[in-house]
Amino acid sequence: MIAEPILHLNENICKTNIHRMAEKAQSQGLAFKPHMKTHQSEEIGEWIRDAGAEGITVSSVKMARYFTDAGWNNIIIAFPSYPGQVNAIDELAANTNLTLLVNNKEVITALEQTLTSPVKAYIEIDTGSDRTGLSVNQKPEIAELINEIKSIQKLKWIGFYSHPGHSYGARSTGEIQKVFSSVKDQFEELRGAFGSSHDSLEVCVGDTPCCSVGTSFEDIDAISPGNFVFYDLMQAHIGSCEVSDIAVAMECPVVDKYPGRNEIAIHGGAVHFSKEIQQQDDVSHYGLAAQWINDHWEIRNSKAHIKALSQEHGILSYAGDVAEDFKVGDSITVLPIHSCLTANLMQQYDLTNGSTIHQMS
Amino acid sequence: MIAEPILHLNENICKTNIHRMAEKAQSQGLAFKPHMKTHQSEEIGEWIRDAGAEGITVSSVKMARYFTDAGWNNIIIAFPSYPGQVNAIDELAANTNLTLLVNNKEVITALEQTLTSPVKAYIEIDTGSDRTGLSVNQKPEIAELINEIKSIQKLKWIGFYSHPGHSYGARSTGEIQKVFSSVKDQFEELRGAFGSSHDSLEVCVGDTPCCSVGTSFEDIDAISPGNFVFYDLMQAHIGSCEVSDIAVAMECPVVDKYPGRNEIAIHGGAVHFSKEIQQQDDVSHYGLAAQWINDHWEIRNSKAHIKALSQEHGILSYAGDVAEDFKVGDSITVLPIHSCLTANLMQQYDLTNGSTIHQMS
Repeated sequence: MIAEPILHLNENICKTNIHRMAEKAQSQGLAFKPHMKTHQSEEIGEWIRDAGAEGITVSSVKMARYFTDAGWNNIIIAFPSYPGQVNAIDELAANTNLTLLVNNKEVITALEQTLTSPVKAYIEIDTGSDRTGLSVNQKPEIAELINEIKSIQKLKWIGFYSHPGHSYGARSTGEIQKVFSSVKDQFEELRGAFGSSHDSLEVCVGDTPCCSVGTSFEDIDAISPGNFVFYDLMQAHIGSCEVSDIAVAMECPVVDKYPGRNEIAIHGGAVHFSKEIQQQDDVSHYGLAAQWINDHWEIRNSKAHIKALSQEHGILSYAGDVAEDFKVGDSITVLPIHSCLTANLMQQYDLTNGSTIHQMS
Repeated sequence: MIAEPILHLNENICKTNIHRMAEKAQSQGLAFKPHMKTHQSEEIGEWIRDAGAEGITVSSVKMARYFTDAGWNNIIIAFPSYPGQVNAIDELAANTNLTLLVNNKEVITALEQTLTSPVKAYIEIDTGSDRTGLSVNQKPEIAELINEIKSIQKLKWIGFYSHPGHSYGARSTGEIQKVFSSVKDQFEELRGAFGSSHDSLEVCVGDTPCCSVGTSFEDIDAISPGNFVFYDLMQAHIGSCEVSDIAVAMECPVVDKYPGRNEIAIHGGAVHFSKEIQQQDDVSHYGLAAQWINDHWEIRNSKAHIKALSQEHGILSYAGDVAEDFKVGDSITVLPIHSCLTANLMQQYDLTNGSTIHQMS
């Protein structure tokens, strides 16, 4: 019997996911720079290093500091740099090779005034996600930024970065491929515009759907997916993976049963799962009950799903087999919608061998 | 210039919220047992102690341990106890007066087999939220549970507890009052059924909307609201408070501006705000831009709201004045939808006097 919710990590599935992506990168001639934001763990970083990654990607300066301390010295901070961060960036740049996203003049000015160590810069391209970066249609602005970056002694422009987050709107491998084609077309256009005068122009693409499903990576030099180490229900829904590729699952104590309304209360709430919600088959839910069969987790036939979350409570709604299977005091396994957010809340992983891996704090 | 998102806590507003609720409890003759899950902080607990609280409420055994260490010795664990927790409960009960929610026979059996220290028990009543507890219509089951609890030497039944979470569906003080009336009717019925044979029957009610808006608390002996210390946009939307009562706000660096689509990118994502979403005035959002005016935060006229969150990114969409007000490198203040979840993620509070308060870790 467990005394609180536990996040399990299956090391075999996770390492298989890592090696599959590393091999794809190698076979396509891509630099493999995986994003560490999903797991935030030094130990899992070592699995990634063992698979051949020489550089990594992170989402914050704090995370860059943690992985620098863990022995990484080639790090992309894949969040647009901004003036408030330049002191911390400069401090870090003394000890590691940093690549920033540099998207506007304000941060260039701040970097110019502060940098004492050299730093590399991507310009981020908004390939369709409407999040951050410049559009491929803003070629004059991109040219101006490149020139400004090149005018700063400690800053070296090396190319373009994109996280095509609109791939998360896909619902099949075909739809992901369509997004990926458009991304590659945009980078081909950028190479045409800026490549001839910049021999070393590097293009890095960072989303798990495109990196998982893409089969040819022309016009791309490096990939930095993150979620693929664990995957989750959202990625399975998008078409990036099979449910059997999901490497993490929550184990939640069964607190009470309500057969009259076909529901079970579990210990597992918004502070464990996050409130990431998924609409699937006319049901909105926060996770699906699963069972471990033949070396992977499978969704239960009952389609039991978390229909409501409060801070510590989860309410599991079911159609079929779950109620008979579980008693108060047992636990139930639930696959998370978004493993990055669940892992960020849980802060540690229980491995099958009984050991525990901790995240950065 | 700030280097990362910051959660500000205005001590004056928070203390005013605490004292208002403490005075209501006193004037209504209610025991004041505030829920600590929202702030999870020893220091804010002391503000609550200063306002006259003698007991507190928590949402987990871990939180009970933290507040026991902080000197509290009268604690309700307002989450249904379950068999996996009984060892930890017994260990804790050696040092503090614990009251549990005891809702089924399985946990009674586990408690019987384990308890070496005395523990008090509420039976939780589901007054309409469809979360956990027994319905007022299950009187035979309630009577049976009472008898079973009374048969256990170390367990003392003291009454009923309810968190009428369906008050969160209200959208005005009138609608909250309606929920509260129904809750009180149910407790009147339970007193009729079980009160005569149990002189000391105590009824405790725990939601912030009913406790904030309720004006007469007949049939209730104790209150344990939590969110009222900070309030948030959700509570203002429900009708529990005014926006000017909100004691916490996020300050987020402005990362980039996109005037063409009326959007601003901020550093402030799902790992800071949580993905709690609110539907208001035909817009779904994760928080509203605010400014500090006359000793409180006010929502900006622009109705600037967070339209999208990824792990570290927030995208603020606006109609009017925000773009001119902010430059890259400035910061923007955003009121959270659900302060409990935002605080749980941020783990610390910056006070106006420059000091920092930490949460339990």
